[in-house]
Amino acid sequence: MIVVMKAGALQIQIDHIIREIENFGYQPHPIFGVERTVIGAIGDEKTKWHLMDALAQEPGVEQVIPIVKPYKLASTEIKKEKSCIKISESIAIGGNEIVVIAGPCSVETREQIFHTAEAVKKAGAKILRGGAYKPRTSPYEFQGLGETGLKLLREAGDAFAMPVITEVLREQDVALVTSYTDILQIGARNMQNYGLLKEVGKIKKPVMLKRGLANTIKEFLMSAEYILSQGNYNVILCERGIRTFETATRNTLDIGAVAVLSYETHLPIIVDPSHAAGKWSLVAPLARGGLAAGADGLMIEVHPNPHEALSDGPQALLPDKFAALMQSLQKIAQASGRALPLPE
Amino acid sequence: MIVVMKAGALQIQIDHIIREIENFGYQPHPIFGVERTVIGAIGDEKTKWHLMDALAQEPGVEQVIPIVKPYKLASTEIKKEKSCIKISESIAIGGNEIVVIAGPCSVETREQIFHTAEAVKKAGAKILRGGAYKPRTSPYEFQGLGETGLKLLREAGDAFAMPVITEVLREQDVALVTSYTDILQIGARNMQNYGLLKEVGKIKKPVMLKRGLANTIKEFLMSAEYILSQGNYNVILCERGIRTFETATRNTLDIGAVAVLSYETHLPIIVDPSHAAGKWSLVAPLARGGLAAGADGLMIEVHPNPHEALSDGPQALLPDKFAALMQSLQKIAQASGRALPLPE
Amino acid sequence: MIVVMKAGALQIQIDHIIREIENFGYQPHPIFGVERTVIGAIGDEKTKWHLMDALAQEPGVEQVIPIVKPYKLASTEIKKEKSCIKISESIAIGGNEIVVIAGPCSVETREQIFHTAEAVKKAGAKILRGGAYKPRTSPYEFQGLGETGLKLLREAGDAFAMPVITEVLREQDVALVTSYTDILQIGARNMQNYGLLKEVGKIKKPVMLKRGLANTIKEFLMSAEYILSQGNYNVILCERGIRTFETATRNTLDIGAVAVLSYETHLPIIVDPSHAAGKWSLVAPLARGGLAAGADGLMIEVHPNPHEALSDGPQALLPDKFAALMQSLQKIAQASGRALPLPE
Amino acid sequence: MIVVMKAGALQIQIDHIIREIENFGYQPHPIFGVERTVIGAIGDEKTKWHLMDALAQEPGVEQVIPIVKPYKLASTEIKKEKSCIKISESIAIGGNEIVVIAGPCSVETREQIFHTAEAVKKAGAKILRGGAYKPRTSPYEFQGLGETGLKLLREAGDAFAMPVITEVLREQDVALVTSYTDILQIGARNMQNYGLLKEVGKIKKPVMLKRGLANTIKEFLMSAEYILSQGNYNVILCERGIRTFETATRNTLDIGAVAVLSYETHLPIIVDPSHAAGKWSLVAPLARGGLAAGADGLMIEVHPNPHEALSDGPQALLPDKFAALMQSLQKIAQASGRALPLPE
Repeated sequence: MIVVMKAGALQIQIDHIIREIENFGYQPHPIFGVERTVIGAIGDEKTKWHLMDALAQEPGVEQVIPIVKPYKLASTEIKKEKSCIKISESIAIGGNEIVVIAGPCSVETREQIFHTAEAVKKAGAKILRGGAYKPRTSPYEFQGLGETGLKLLREAGDAFAMPVITEVLREQDVALVTSYTDILQIGARNMQNYGLLKEVGKIKKPVMLKRGLANTIKEFLMSAEYILSQGNYNVILCERGIRTFETATRNTLDIGAVAVLSYETHLPIIVDPSHAAGKWSLVAPLARGGLAAGADGLMIEVHPNPHEALSDGPQALLPDKFAALMQSLQKIAQASGRALPLPE
Repeated sequence: MIVVMKAGALQIQIDHIIREIENFGYQPHPIFGVERTVIGAIGDEKTKWHLMDALAQEPGVEQVIPIVKPYKLASTEIKKEKSCIKISESIAIGGNEIVVIAGPCSVETREQIFHTAEAVKKAGAKILRGGAYKPRTSPYEFQGLGETGLKLLREAGDAFAMPVITEVLREQDVALVTSYTDILQIGARNMQNYGLLKEVGKIKKPVMLKRGLANTIKEFLMSAEYILSQGNYNVILCERGIRTFETATRNTLDIGAVAVLSYETHLPIIVDPSHAAGKWSLVAPLARGGLAAGADGLMIEVHPNPHEALSDGPQALLPDKFAALMQSLQKIAQASGRALPLPE
Repeated sequence: MIVVMKAGALQIQIDHIIREIENFGYQPHPIFGVERTVIGAIGDEKTKWHLMDALAQEPGVEQVIPIVKPYKLASTEIKKEKSCIKISESIAIGGNEIVVIAGPCSVETREQIFHTAEAVKKAGAKILRGGAYKPRTSPYEFQGLGETGLKLLREAGDAFAMPVITEVLREQDVALVTSYTDILQIGARNMQNYGLLKEVGKIKKPVMLKRGLANTIKEFLMSAEYILSQGNYNVILCERGIRTFETATRNTLDIGAVAVLSYETHLPIIVDPSHAAGKWSLVAPLARGGLAAGADGLMIEVHPNPHEALSDGPQALLPDKFAALMQSLQKIAQASGRALPLPE
Repeated sequence: MIVVMKAGALQIQIDHIIREIENFGYQPHPIFGVERTVIGAIGDEKTKWHLMDALAQEPGVEQVIPIVKPYKLASTEIKKEKSCIKISESIAIGGNEIVVIAGPCSVETREQIFHTAEAVKKAGAKILRGGAYKPRTSPYEFQGLGETGLKLLREAGDAFAMPVITEVLREQDVALVTSYTDILQIGARNMQNYGLLKEVGKIKKPVMLKRGLANTIKEFLMSAEYILSQGNYNVILCERGIRTFETATRNTLDIGAVAVLSYETHLPIIVDPSHAAGKWSLVAPLARGGLAAGADGLMIEVHPNPHEALSDGPQALLPDKFAALMQSLQKIAQASGRALPLPE
């Protein structure tokens, strides 16, 4: 349920409500808005009417509203305005500015990640991506450089003043990965790895959750809810294509999901055209389409030497192709009422 | 195979090659370009090397190239530049200008189709749509007004100086529908109704072929090939969403298909966001996304009174919402290097 | 709605109800059971309550019940016991006996169809299949022998005392095909070709309707309803695999559909393991699985020389493999409480 | 690659080959057959030809064969005969005898699990299932009893002399769950949780791996390979339905996968009709169909009081329905040349 406090409610009244919610065995999730505070209260469905009645009469409370959707904290029922997730002093995802994340699929060598970081920064990317732990279909394929990869990514990010994002695969690695990265990525295969979701729910750093390749939008939001319900509200969603009968593209980019999510949730959404395309030549049209459909940002794979990449080479853009794409994305962003500032 | 004539080949040489192809039991498909003529020759795969050898030595022939793709006349192997399908004196699909087709799902009454025609024309739509024969899942639902609907559509188009498009369901109706409409639409359910495809291949009017809800891009092009191989080269493709596990949208709009098709075929492509969305509130983001992904035009359902529509009401835009969408589409078109002129 | 007549209702009372239904602008569909007669009345949903009230008071009427499902005549609401469709004096589909249909994908030569007919008859098949009109993805592939194929199929069927089944693709061919065949097949690509469905609804011969490759069970029954509502109640359903992301099999055989259909409809259901498998080596396990899941029969492709087949060779069984399969199917049939008599 | 030893190869020769493989940086996987020993050698693809050459000349070696499939240890290339996984002194999965696993979705109370255990044992089930850690789409739903559930399951299994199977969700829980259970289940959502797969690859107890809801058969085998490559060869596969467009069943049971797997792998395969059906009334036909298609066993949900179940109640069979199903499964097993002995 959502407890909407009156516009001038006192802090003491808010604190009281929070305690009441806890006393009832529910979890309080206060959201401090510009005009007023609302407090989400999540707990046992069976007893909710009793609690709603009780809270509605407390001083400072304007009204108490049930949440109809199965996702509570992720829903626009509890928070209408888009969440703007702060990544660094100057970068946030979910505001008016489109944020482009770029980099190689995997961190492979110091030269590779530095070279790529420099190139994507120059082209206008704001955040550097690179995998250190790679979930690979085959146990015999390159599984990532591990902590060495994390270090190289961090160094490259620092060298070019870019926050970094990298994937965490295992609960046990969350602390280590968190110590190196600015955003933790949960990959598509782990979208319903609930132990991992709960673990990243306990930290404060932003988490980018990718949609599973056969998961519905509702399931996607329920997985976000796992993170939010642990107290980490810095969740960014990522649509990266779903599995369908069509094989001409690696996955089918679902821009309908971008549209639906903008109604259903306040969480920002990133589109990953690279994994949807599977081929570099299809990345640009998918990036433009995803942006025009309402994405708050894009994540694009760039590699200085795609045919030598240890993973996903065919879908990586060369740096100059990426730079050209950024120019065209800026125009689409502006046509969509958004900004995408590029370096001079 | 493709017979590429020399830049200065004489008409008599071209005619000779065409006769040779016919003598061999193949179908000749000459394509007269600005600089040179190429002649597609389609026939039995088993004997093709023999014919290729023979033709390569004829006067005026520069080279003879096999077509690798299973779709021959639809392929960019035979024709690289985008085909621009002329609809009327001033309207063509596939050129620099984005063409928007709009109107109700079904023609219902004179007032309804005239009202809608006026509204969409004023908002910038170029072509009027309206169904007279409706393929309905249930035999007990409204099946369209038939010839009465065709007449009303024609009159509304004439009244507002708009070419019209309407669906033809049966081979036997092709002549009748052709007598009323400027473009014949083949619906998704009929994408592999080969008798119907052949029949519309025998006329000269443009045909818009919609992708079947579970058909691959390759099958889509093979169905276009059925029409082309009968001699009607005025084929427009339409991506309208595919069937997947996701139910939050009626279908999943596959903008990857738009991207792939732009490499694989010279035929222009229209995106139908209405049938993909299934809900009016999702139409605008899908329309913008499809356009930014490279569509040559859009087909959008508009109804003056959606909740009284006899079919597909929930996905129809109100005229004022459509007008607002056209404004934003113009910006996306320009950002994509295309034009979408709107009335003053 | 369903008008349930009293057990001893007079014919004159039944006739009266039928006229009343017609007078009201509804279609009457009487079903004469052993104990009592029920009359389906199909028409405009909006006026149904009025008619129900009127009929409930007529002499001989026990009760009038609305039909909840969107498919009316196909539903078990109107008829609980399985329909048993008579094919010849000695063969019926939907009774206790499992019926196996076998033969080549396409009729190719007299020798091929006679050879196959002899072999499958000897192995225990009851009905001979063979395509004369083939719906092919490519316009350049073998499209069937046409009427010559129909003649050869009929002759082979007569020579070996087997009813025959063949596909009809076009409305215009229904009369011709009907004159040669015992069962008309509507293929998966035509499941929603409503003109064709209505046309075969006007004849009396049995129709086997194949499920479209991406059509839901509900849509499947709605298409059957198109045929039934025209007055042809001899409809047999055929599950032949649906299109999914899995490519190891040509299609995914949906035995869940067999199970669901047995609750939803009284129409008999045939399983086609050949088109689901796409490879001969997978046909036997799918045939056994489909039978054990409740199918009333099977349709299996057999060819004397699969690697020279003009269509679908890879999925055709050799005659001796088919004979071995029939032995194992007999055991599964018996284990399922059904009979599958084989020649000595 | 596969090193095939000569029929009379000495142990000292086998040991030598194993050391050579290790010296080369490859992993040796000896498989001791009745007639001869083969040794799988898995390592870097780039150097394999060199090692193959070297080993082929060693004493006791008959031949060295490359493995073509991406799954090596799971492939029938390395081992043709079906693996028979021993569960207890008297129970094995993969032999001639069909093994039925039954029990509730979740362990809820002592009474519930004991009652169910007694009933399914009496009906002929060999192994008891029950979840203690439940992966739930919503963070607000019942997540299982945890270790208390494990204890109750173990006690019920012991009380009725049945081995037990339960799901493990997290790497950290593998040791704990292993201490209570006879078989560890990896659920569909975790099929590509590679950390978890590697962890259960390090123990010796049997692991049942469920197919992910949108994973191909190839990906399924690659995930099995993760477990095998760690040295745990006791892997059982479980087909439980895939996600498709059809919603009449919860998932689409893919019996084609059962057929394909029997060619591709030596690992035994279990069919779970309950999760495919999603409704109890559809469980029996799917169970029979899966068995007839070649499954080595079935896993079926049974609950004494389905409408009070804390998870998946609608798909649970009542004990008496389960007992009736077992009778019919015995007949199908026998018709398939398998045995399914039932208690007197």
